[in-house]
Parts: sequence; C-alpha cells; structure tokens
Amino acid sequence: MVASEIRALFAVASRPEVVSLAGGMPYVTALPLDTVGEIVADLVAHRGTVALQYGSGQGDPHLREQICEVMRLEGIEAGPDDVVVTVGSQQALDLITRIFIDPGDVVLAEGPSYVGALGTFAAYQASVVHVAMDDEGLIPEELSATIDALAREGRRIKFLYTVPNFQNPAGVTLSAARRHQVLEICHRADVLVVEDNPYGLLGFDGDPMRALRADDPDGVVYLGSFSKTLAPGFRVGWALAPHAVRDKLVLAMESAVLSHSSFSQLAVGQYLASQPWREQIKSFRELYRERRDALLGAMEALMPPGCVWTRPAGGFFVWMTLPEGLDSKAILPRAVAERVAFVPGTGFYADGSGARHMRLSYCYPEPDRIREGVRRLSGVIQQELLIRDTFGTGSAPAHGGVDTPGPDLA
Amino acid sequence: MVASEIRALFAVASRPEVVSLAGGMPYVTALPLDTVGEIVADLVAHRGTVALQYGSGQGDPHLREQICEVMRLEGIEAGPDDVVVTVGSQQALDLITRIFIDPGDVVLAEGPSYVGALGTFAAYQASVVHVAMDDEGLIPEELSATIDALAREGRRIKFLYTVPNFQNPAGVTLSAARRHQVLEICHRADVLVVEDNPYGLLGFDGDPMRALRADDPDGVVYLGSFSKTLAPGFRVGWALAPHAVRDKLVLAMESAVLSHSSFSQLAVGQYLASQPWREQIKSFRELYRERRDALLGAMEALMPPGCVWTRPAGGFFVWMTLPEGLDSKAILPRAVAERVAFVPGTGFYADGSGARHMRLSYCYPEPDRIREGVRRLSGVIQQELLIRDTFGTGSAPAHGGVDTPGPDLA
Repeated sequence: MVASEIRALFAVASRPEVVSLAGGMPYVTALPLDTVGEIVADLVAHRGTVALQYGSGQGDPHLREQICEVMRLEGIEAGPDDVVVTVGSQQALDLITRIFIDPGDVVLAEGPSYVGALGTFAAYQASVVHVAMDDEGLIPEELSATIDALAREGRRIKFLYTVPNFQNPAGVTLSAARRHQVLEICHRADVLVVEDNPYGLLGFDGDPMRALRADDPDGVVYLGSFSKTLAPGFRVGWALAPHAVRDKLVLAMESAVLSHSSFSQLAVGQYLASQPWREQIKSFRELYRERRDALLGAMEALMPPGCVWTRPAGGFFVWMTLPEGLDSKAILPRAVAERVAFVPGTGFYADGSGARHMRLSYCYPEPDRIREGVRRLSGVIQQELLIRDTFGTGSAPAHGGVDTPGPDLA
Repeated sequence: MVASEIRALFAVASRPEVVSLAGGMPYVTALPLDTVGEIVADLVAHRGTVALQYGSGQGDPHLREQICEVMRLEGIEAGPDDVVVTVGSQQALDLITRIFIDPGDVVLAEGPSYVGALGTFAAYQASVVHVAMDDEGLIPEELSATIDALAREGRRIKFLYTVPNFQNPAGVTLSAARRHQVLEICHRADVLVVEDNPYGLLGFDGDPMRALRADDPDGVVYLGSFSKTLAPGFRVGWALAPHAVRDKLVLAMESAVLSHSSFSQLAVGQYLASQPWREQIKSFRELYRERRDALLGAMEALMPPGCVWTRPAGGFFVWMTLPEGLDSKAILPRAVAERVAFVPGTGFYADGSGARHMRLSYCYPEPDRIREGVRRLSGVIQQELLIRDTFGTGSAPAHGGVDTPGPDLA
C-alpha cells in the first residue's frame, strides 16, 4: 500500500460504523461550547478591530505571557520575548527544520517517532536516524552510541527531536533520571534538543513532569500547543527558543504566513483569561484516563498471546507489537472490513521498519466503543495468527515508506 | 539602515500622532462587528465540534465551493477540488516557492514587487529577476527580452510572479490587451504564471478585470485572499492550481501546519453564506476610493515639482518617484520625526535599487489625516530638495538590501 491507498482506506474508516483507534483527534465535545461561543462573540464585538486585523510575526504579546504561565506548570521559567506563536506546534517544527536543516543533515528521533515530524523532516531532506526506546523512553546509552557512530562517519547532527511525555506513538514517558542524562549527552555532543510536548499536561498520575527545557534554556527548543489542552481548531501552538533561534523563527514565520490569525490567538487568550482552564485540563485528564483504562482492560482480556503493548500514563496512545510473522499494514484492510481502524507502525519510522507494530489511540471514541473496537481487532489478529500457523505467514506484507495519513490522524 | 533599524523606526511610526502612509492594513473598522460576533458565537455553539477540531489539509470543502463563487466574479471557472485553503495567500506563495524553487532558480517579478513575496523568494534562495512596468503594468516586450536573455545564459526560470491588479507597491494594473500577451509569452517559454490577486475586487471603476487564470487554467497558479475583502485576522487565503500542483500543495500544507484553522475557515464560510458580502466589498471600494482621492488630490496640490506618482484605479497603494538626488530611505527618519511614515522603495526590489521611490498607502488613515500626512511629507521633501540644491545631494543615502518591515506593513 502506498500513501494514497492508506488515505483511501482511512476515508472508509471515518464512517460511523467503524471504531477508529487511528485518529489523534482530541475529544472537543467535552468543552463548554456555549461559553466558548460567548467568548469569541464578545471578542469580535469589543476588540474586533484588533482581532480581525494583521498581528505581529511573533504573536500577540499578551498571549505570549499567558503561554509562559502555562509552561510554568512544567518548571519552565521564561519570558514572553522568547516565545513565538505558531500555526500549531506543527508549524514550529516546520520552521525549526527550515532554519536548521540542509539536505542530508541528520535529525535524531525516537524510534518510533511522530509521523507529522517525519513528514516535515523528509520535506527538507533531512536524514532521520532513530534511537531506540524502552518503557522509560529514549535509552541514553543508545543515544550516546548513535551520536558516536555518526561522528565517526563524519555526519552532521543538527538536533534531537523528542516527545518526552506520553510519546506519540509509543505512549511512553522519559523518566526523570534519564532526562538529565539525555541533556548531558546532547550538551557534550553539541546537539540541540527539540522538545515537542503537546501532551505534557495530560498525565493521569500526579503532577506534570519537569520539562527538559526547564533545566537547559540554551540547549533546548521547546514546542507547545493548545490543540490538546483546549482545541486544535484554533491552530495555536508555540516555540520557546534561545534568543538567536527566536529571531530566526520570527523572520521565518513572517516569510511563511506573515502572521498567525489574531482572531485565533485572542480567542485562546480570552479563554485562558476568563475560564477555569486548569479545571478543564483536569476534566480532560479524567476523560482520557477512563478511555485508556477501557483500552488496556479490553486488550488484557481479549488480545491473543504474543501481542505486547505499552501502558501510557497520559496522552492518547498505546503502541502494540504483534506476534512474529504478522504485518500491521497488511492487516489494516481486513481490520477496516471488520469495522475497526488503527495506524500501522511503518508510518512512524523513516526507514520503512515498524511493520510488526501499530498505534492504537483512545482519545476519541467512548469507552464502550473502544472495548468493541478491541474485540473486533482481536478477532482479526486471531484470524491472522490462524493463517500464519497454517501457511507460515500472515497476509502478504505491504511495501514500506513514510505514510502520510492526514491531519486528523497525525 | 538595516532591517532592524527599519523595524525600530516603524515602531515609532505606529504612535498615534504619526500619520502612517506605510501600512497595508485594511480598514476593518468598516465591518459590522456585532454581526460578525454573532456569526462566530453561533458557529461555536452549533458547529463547535467541527469548528474546534482538526480539519483536512486541503481545507473545508464548503468554503472551497464558496471560494469558486468568489473567483467567478473575475471570470474563473473552477471546481473546489482544485482549491487549497491556506494561512493567507502568503502561505500559498510560500508553499508554491517551496515546491518549485531550488537554490539559484530564477523567479521573474515585476520591478518593483511585493515585499512579502521577495522575502519568501529570498528564504528559498531564488534569484529574482525584475521585469519593468509602466502605467499599464508589466511590459510584454521587457518580459520577452528578459526570458530570452536568461535562456541565453542557460538560467532556469521557474515562474513569473505577478500582481496584475492595483499592484503592490506600484498601484498599476495590467491592461486587458497585455494579459493575453503575457500569457502567450509565458506559455511559449514554458514559464508558469503565479497570479497573486488580493485586490482584484477592490477596483474603483466598473467590473473586476478578467483574471489571467480565467484564460489559462493549466499555466497559471492563482492566489486569492479574504484579507482585503473581509478581514486579515482570519488568515484565510487560497491557491487555485492545476491538478499536479494542487496535490503537491496539499502535502506541503500538511507538512507545514497539518491543517488550517477550522474555526477561521468556518467563520469565513458562515460570513459568506449569511451576509451580503458583495455589498460589503462595494462599501470597502467606496471607502478606499475616497481615500485614494484624498491622497492624489493632496499630492497634486502639495508635492514639489520633480515628484511623479502613479494613479491607482483600485487597491491600496500609490508609488512615488522622487526628484533625482533624493533617497527615500535616508529621508524616512526625518519624515517620522515630522510625524508621517511611508515605506522606502528599496524594500520592493531584490537588487537593492529603488532608492528614489516610496510606497504611499491610503487604506488605513481617514481622508483628513491622509491630507495632513501629505502636507508633512511634502514639507520634508522640500527640505531635502533645499539640502540637495545647497550641497549637491540630499540626506546621506542608506545602504541597500531587502527590508522586512513586518506583517502590518507588507
């Protein structure tokens, strides 16, 4: 299957009878829509000449102050001058890549890594080298060994791209001890860290983890987003960067889009200023925790032996590894026919590997639907195992390459 | 002066006591803000789960249909499948440049040309070659000669970038007869045309001109925008492109920002569906016509001999040429001290020329303020002429380079 086939399949998968464990869409239905409606109406009526006008390339100054307040929850002390508001954190990633990458430069990324980042890196002809993870996230020894090996080959590493919290797609979190090691390794090797943190405030247990950026203001570019803590429809994300990078980001931002939507930025600012946003995030956490529990519980009960998966402590995703001989991309059409969808693992690797993995997301469907989805998926996998045991292999493996499953699935 | 100095100067120029003839900001105060407020409130309350969610990379299908209806006013027959909604037409320009340009490739552009486009071309290391204009826009013979000369040098031309209507910054419009010639020349030389048309519906006399795209669906990428006909704060623009380019644009869009804001797109769509938008554009036209008349009338009455300028039939801008020996960039600090601002001509050329020109915009200040601005500017220029006649030159010329005066001045 090539990208266009994957897209066609996901078009089918968006039908209501299909349980989609594929999408990364937050459950915006949980927001107080009437209240948000009043906020935007008030905004246009009273500050319309600002909200409907061009803004600055760096973004609304008041929103940048509020963003600093949000980041303080993860131990980050920063001023609004170092923040650039972007069209989702995806744009921050795009602009950072534009600034740093010449064709052939190396980007280090977790294996697996976020599909939307891999697409951007590919667009700028970066060479992605994956670093292995385990249940505590990126493995420092692997990181160190990879950097050394690349240095021996004379290849230029531009940055490490990492999603330390509730990683997309693996669902794992970089442990506190390892955070220091990762920073130290990168500092010593003069490798910039790009910390992408859309899910950091959506942890199910205790306080948010301390951000990598909190302990290394000069060595880390931090990317944040309101897409998961409020709503993706505003497309408001940001980058927090050291001065020199910040200046380049503002120029790149202006060259790319002139300025972000004032309307969107002020709407988010007004929401933060007038609504109990910390409480709203808490209620999102409860909602997603219930769905994670539904997914893990059903998997525990129903998945055939030989399947293994991660246990996320926050965020949206579980990463499952199939028994040997099974290919998730080959299974997908059969799964969709059985009215359940997932994202095959190959999309999350730049090198075409990952065929034995799949990403299951629990953010969007209701718990009962999640359980039904797992029941269906388990049936499909059992069927595949039967084929494997009969013929020595599962459905014919699909050929590799980076998938681009579209925005709602990223 | 370098870009940062220009920026510092414009920061001063944004004070209320300064009459800014610099900015390209539309007069959004003329919009029915309460009504727009009701539209967005209703949108969030009733379609919030769509408006606040991720959308598709190509953009909202219904809005793309409405965009086709808007383009029909300029003779364009196109389907929504060929439209990609972008973060302002600036992003469309950025993505088109990303798709087509390798470092060193040639982009043809009017001389002078839009500063925001030149910034984007520079970001992708395009080599911009200017083609001269007169009062009827781009001169076909010059275009033809430039293409031939580049062919002889073996340089690869990727596209012609043109703003055919009420050009930014020159204010001139490509005549109907020349449109056919330009299309024919580009077709013969296999040069794609990128038609950037933010002001096409803001003509003061008669019906809108027929778009270049209307007569050459395969050879033209058309860029449109709601920034001037509605409001820039939504950042909704679009590209209409031949199939193969459209496909690449969607992928580039997803890589750059995943998707545009659903909230912004649906707000614009709801405005178009429920409000008399043609009447609104008509009232914008009347407003800008009155301001153009105020500017031209005051210039006629007050500018010293030796100054010449264009007479725009629409849009936002007048292009003035100073008497020999005067340098607009050198004059700017003095003008700001006298509480009037403009954009120096050098920003609109990729090669550092343009020092004798300036762009004067009439879109934002009230007519009386415009007249007062011209009075002040005329005084400054008369002073400069006195210095020139005494010392043989005006204020010391500033060094060249592309200015990036920021989004509100682009």
